[in-house]
Amino acid sequence: MNVSQERLRADIEANAAFGALEYDDSDTPNEDGDGGQGQEQAQEQTQPQRQTHGRTVLTGTEANRRARDHLVSRLEDAGLAVEIDAVGNITGTWTPESADPDAAPVAAGSHLDSVPEGGIFDGPLGVYAALESVRALQDAEAEPERPITVVCFTEEEGTRFGGGLLGSSVATGQLAVEEALSATDDDGVELGDALENIGYRGEGVLDPADWDSFLELHVEQDTRLEDAGVPVGVVSTITGIAHVTATFTGETNHAGTTGMAERADAFTAASEFALALEEAGTEAALAGVSEGASDGDADADGIDEPIGGTAVATVGKCNVTPNATNVVPGRVELGVDIRDVDGETMAGLLERAERVLARIEAERPVETTFELELDVAPAPMSERCRDALESGADATTVESRTLHSGAAHDAMCVSRVTDAGMLFAPSRNGLSHTPLEWTDWDDCATATRVLADAIGRLAGEASD
Amino acid sequence: MNVSQERLRADIEANAAFGALEYDDSDTPNEDGDGGQGQEQAQEQTQPQRQTHGRTVLTGTEANRRARDHLVSRLEDAGLAVEIDAVGNITGTWTPESADPDAAPVAAGSHLDSVPEGGIFDGPLGVYAALESVRALQDAEAEPERPITVVCFTEEEGTRFGGGLLGSSVATGQLAVEEALSATDDDGVELGDALENIGYRGEGVLDPADWDSFLELHVEQDTRLEDAGVPVGVVSTITGIAHVTATFTGETNHAGTTGMAERADAFTAASEFALALEEAGTEAALAGVSEGASDGDADADGIDEPIGGTAVATVGKCNVTPNATNVVPGRVELGVDIRDVDGETMAGLLERAERVLARIEAERPVETTFELELDVAPAPMSERCRDALESGADATTVESRTLHSGAAHDAMCVSRVTDAGMLFAPSRNGLSHTPLEWTDWDDCATATRVLADAIGRLAGEASD
Repeated sequence: MNVSQERLRADIEANAAFGALEYDDSDTPNEDGDGGQGQEQAQEQTQPQRQTHGRTVLTGTEANRRARDHLVSRLEDAGLAVEIDAVGNITGTWTPESADPDAAPVAAGSHLDSVPEGGIFDGPLGVYAALESVRALQDAEAEPERPITVVCFTEEEGTRFGGGLLGSSVATGQLAVEEALSATDDDGVELGDALENIGYRGEGVLDPADWDSFLELHVEQDTRLEDAGVPVGVVSTITGIAHVTATFTGETNHAGTTGMAERADAFTAASEFALALEEAGTEAALAGVSEGASDGDADADGIDEPIGGTAVATVGKCNVTPNATNVVPGRVELGVDIRDVDGETMAGLLERAERVLARIEAERPVETTFELELDVAPAPMSERCRDALESGADATTVESRTLHSGAAHDAMCVSRVTDAGMLFAPSRNGLSHTPLEWTDWDDCATATRVLADAIGRLAGEASD
Repeated sequence: MNVSQERLRADIEANAAFGALEYDDSDTPNEDGDGGQGQEQAQEQTQPQRQTHGRTVLTGTEANRRARDHLVSRLEDAGLAVEIDAVGNITGTWTPESADPDAAPVAAGSHLDSVPEGGIFDGPLGVYAALESVRALQDAEAEPERPITVVCFTEEEGTRFGGGLLGSSVATGQLAVEEALSATDDDGVELGDALENIGYRGEGVLDPADWDSFLELHVEQDTRLEDAGVPVGVVSTITGIAHVTATFTGETNHAGTTGMAERADAFTAASEFALALEEAGTEAALAGVSEGASDGDADADGIDEPIGGTAVATVGKCNVTPNATNVVPGRVELGVDIRDVDGETMAGLLERAERVLARIEAERPVETTFELELDVAPAPMSERCRDALESGADATTVESRTLHSGAAHDAMCVSRVTDAGMLFAPSRNGLSHTPLEWTDWDDCATATRVLADAIGRLAGEASD
């Protein structure tokens, strides 16, 4: 398959200009856009530490409008039929003469929005790799039996309008379109108005249940591929995620006049919980490893990951009231994140967290609450999509590895309504959500070749 | 001694009007100021839970100007010679004919500023009780050999211009006057300009080293007097205070994609420290109690407090970076408060805290720092002042108790340069720094009688 690294790179770099962060000349290589990319590319590959390609592209902003306009023009350049739905999800569909126009299409894509000061690959790689796959199939005069749809979901990061996975949640019926459109940013601006304002509030709602299958290429955001020296990862399962708010209420008191035996210190109670949760997470991870359980079929190399080895438990947020050095804290609120690819392990961790709170309440003069804010089940990827991706890797003679995703992605939502698969490209040093995020252009192209082959297979066109 | 409860109460209530918080009628008793105080007082004594006499009097504000103007007029009404120093410390000196005008005066007082939404007794009780003592001595036609000075120190709470004990620190040479005057509030306003603005930037600096002695009456801010049913407490020692900033630097990481074994979690490291510090404080307090050591001479009733039983160790402040539920914390900063009346116990707790940090650094992939921000030695009160206060209690047939102060007071600074003593009045439920702070008017008057007697004794006039 004639995937063009240059064409893919030009698209991603053009997209990176929208909402681009400004840097000192000393921090960034000179890019004069003269098309002489050979030397520039060499420089980037040998001086990765100088890469600071950051961008901020929040939904409904001018940067987002320009990024969307550019995508639409590139989809149209490739002859795709573009549609915009009510929450701004963009699709471009190629219906070749070989295809039954009524057949369920094979879809692929990701998102174009970013976190504040994020990187240039998280999202755009999946969108433009899907478009490049279509162009490669066109160039190869492939004759797929199904239409192929390139997808860009709205507000995946959830940075401006909250929650995350917004566009794919609406499309898969997990979030009502009215609720999504009335979501507000910190200034009270509604998503609907923000989309209207940039010309991307369309009609109807995209329905992935109508798709034959969906593939998403994304950067790994971890170091497993880099550590293994393997260029692509086929995702077995996207981890389940539970978010809990745990509160500890003691008594605010003068740190000088309140004796150790008299105090009801909410912070030391919360500290005890944080350590117990860390222990629980570590035990669940170790138990998974020692049991040698697997999170799916072992791949050809047998380097599959164990269930439980994938369990994580984190206290990421801690707000103390009143938060003054000379005052015994009266109230602490913790934000707790629990994940695993195995639903039972997650449930076990949540139960254990509640038992720890009950014990702390019994042993210390504090009251606790435990509120489940988010509880998303693990999302196994479909066998058919995983097979297509692994066959794609074999066909392009690329080594692949099976691994889980510890982060949520649009494919998680789509997997609830149709067959979904995910492919990872390596993240340098595992970094993401930072201008330091980087994936080598060679790796981008390699993963896109695997994606294009897998799309072709799912669409009834086996390449060689 | 003819201390007038009505006169004292009228002064404190008049002062409470400056910066008074507004409440719903349903929250506060009707006070129409018609002078019929009998019924109103009975209501207050029987319905303490309805008391919400809050005030906010920050240095250099209009409320502060009015409170100062009122004090100055009341000092002048009593025939005292008023002086204002460069940082706004106010003194009013009574030099009776019986006194050698060149003799070192006996001083007494406290402060008029408050924390935001503080109570009406913390500070003003000590200032107006000192004035009432002078008036009572005058009424009794006492013939003291020394002048008597009523003192109001600037910015004791440190709420607006930071640090606390500002006026007494400058007066006792622990803070340069230029440094104090250039201290800024959150809006960049300098103390010197704020004082100028309200007409209280005077000349020269008050020098307590010139005083024979200093007595400060203050609310206890604890429940020991209330629990013992004793109306006055004679302070043995004001606790030493150390403030430490402890930081924990790990690595900010995605809570989903970073395995338990791979993370460098700054928050769990900080949690371990908080629990170890709590344990150290509790052990120091228990060790003091079991050793039966004393923080000074046992009083007549032998109910003296043990050293170490007075030790406290607190993590009052915790700031997490980036503080998001789904991110492993990369950095945590803790504000640590360590106090005891015994300097060696404090030093032992500080050393133990540093050893705990070293152990955590050895056992977890984090780096720590330990910065001593404040290290104030315990301040024993002078024997002479304690004797005068205890004799005053005996002479007024009031039961007293010896206890330490877990909070800092202006008397702490003054004790570094001359003999100082402190007297406590009971705080209902131990509350302070809240509109719920309350001391019964009877207790205010009782403590003022003891203060007046002690001032008379120190000034060479023994009452009976």
